[in-house]
Amino acid sequence: MSDTPKSPRSTVRRAPRRGTYSRDDLLEILDEAWLCHVGVVDDGAPVVIPMSCWLYEERLMVHGSPRSRLMRLLLEGAAACVTVTHLDGLVLARSAFHHSMNYRSVVLHGVATEVSDPQARGAAFAAFVEKVEPGRWDRIRQPNDAELRATTLLGFDIDEAAGKRRTGGPVDAPADLSHPVWAGVIPLALTRGAPVRDGAAVE
Amino acid sequence: MSDTPKSPRSTVRRAPRRGTYSRDDLLEILDEAWLCHVGVVDDGAPVVIPMSCWLYEERLMVHGSPRSRLMRLLLEGAAACVTVTHLDGLVLARSAFHHSMNYRSVVLHGVATEVSDPQARGAAFAAFVEKVEPGRWDRIRQPNDAELRATTLLGFDIDEAAGKRRTGGPVDAPADLSHPVWAGVIPLALTRGAPVRDGAAVE
Repeated sequence: MSDTPKSPRSTVRRAPRRGTYSRDDLLEILDEAWLCHVGVVDDGAPVVIPMSCWLYEERLMVHGSPRSRLMRLLLEGAAACVTVTHLDGLVLARSAFHHSMNYRSVVLHGVATEVSDPQARGAAFAAFVEKVEPGRWDRIRQPNDAELRATTLLGFDIDEAAGKRRTGGPVDAPADLSHPVWAGVIPLALTRGAPVRDGAAVE
Repeated sequence: MSDTPKSPRSTVRRAPRRGTYSRDDLLEILDEAWLCHVGVVDDGAPVVIPMSCWLYEERLMVHGSPRSRLMRLLLEGAAACVTVTHLDGLVLARSAFHHSMNYRSVVLHGVATEVSDPQARGAAFAAFVEKVEPGRWDRIRQPNDAELRATTLLGFDIDEAAGKRRTGGPVDAPADLSHPVWAGVIPLALTRGAPVRDGAAVE
């Protein structure tokens, strides 16, 4: 698929070899995310808030109460920077300086668009629940009108966006390779534990 | 220990019962983090960049090249918002509306201070490496002058900051408790996999 268009602020300048602008790469990184960090300027100062997120029709969706300050700012068209980061490993080098981390990230600039069409809203919320557990949407009690009114749904186009990733082992200077210390990668991953059934269940 | 002083922007307004201002709580959440998301205003627009982080003497430390745009902005005294989030679980309710996530987060406002004293810098970098693997600092090749010059070290005071957390199971409406669907929590945790030794090792 096509690359995202490059803009000065969505061009990876530090370690540019780690940058990616391929839409497929960006979608893959975003699709794995449960959380994004949304930055806006509020009263002249930056604010960064974690929000749950998911992909729907190749847009990054967030939702929340229309009464929250962040949602209000986004609804008013505030410029936003939405960042998703997966930490994939700790990179242990022989030298302190070359210690690093493996990660994949997307930094997306844009203005959120509200999704207000009832059918699109239903389909987008269903996509989120299906991401949690395939088949779940049809088994749960679906939103009623009051609940839908209490939830604002916003989408960000994957347009002015850049990905970045580091993979692989440490890159030590040749002179350090004989330094007698273990070097390599400790993989990190967000993993699911054993499900804990709710005590209030009346099934 | 004392609470952080409350300011309007570091007061949890959405679901305030989930807020915490206890310094011990904030330090515990921050100490567990490998990554923070640093937001600044650049040319009027928000930018949110993931950075590795660690605690040193009750300050949140970040480091990077003095040539990076973000580090330059921080060095110039840009107002920053630094956010750390741990995702602890997916909360599956009987109703779509009450699905949620368990998490712990800290949102910190402040201006970074450069740490330039050589001894403090060494001790702070050592603290980071020791967090990765206790005892490692004395075994690795420590930074030389050129490497130290290429690394800017910044600290954020844990001062204007608020924590927030959600724990526990779904909170469904009583009328939904008999809805015939599994409800509960799928725990999530960032876990370490089996270490992968670097192929270039000459030990």
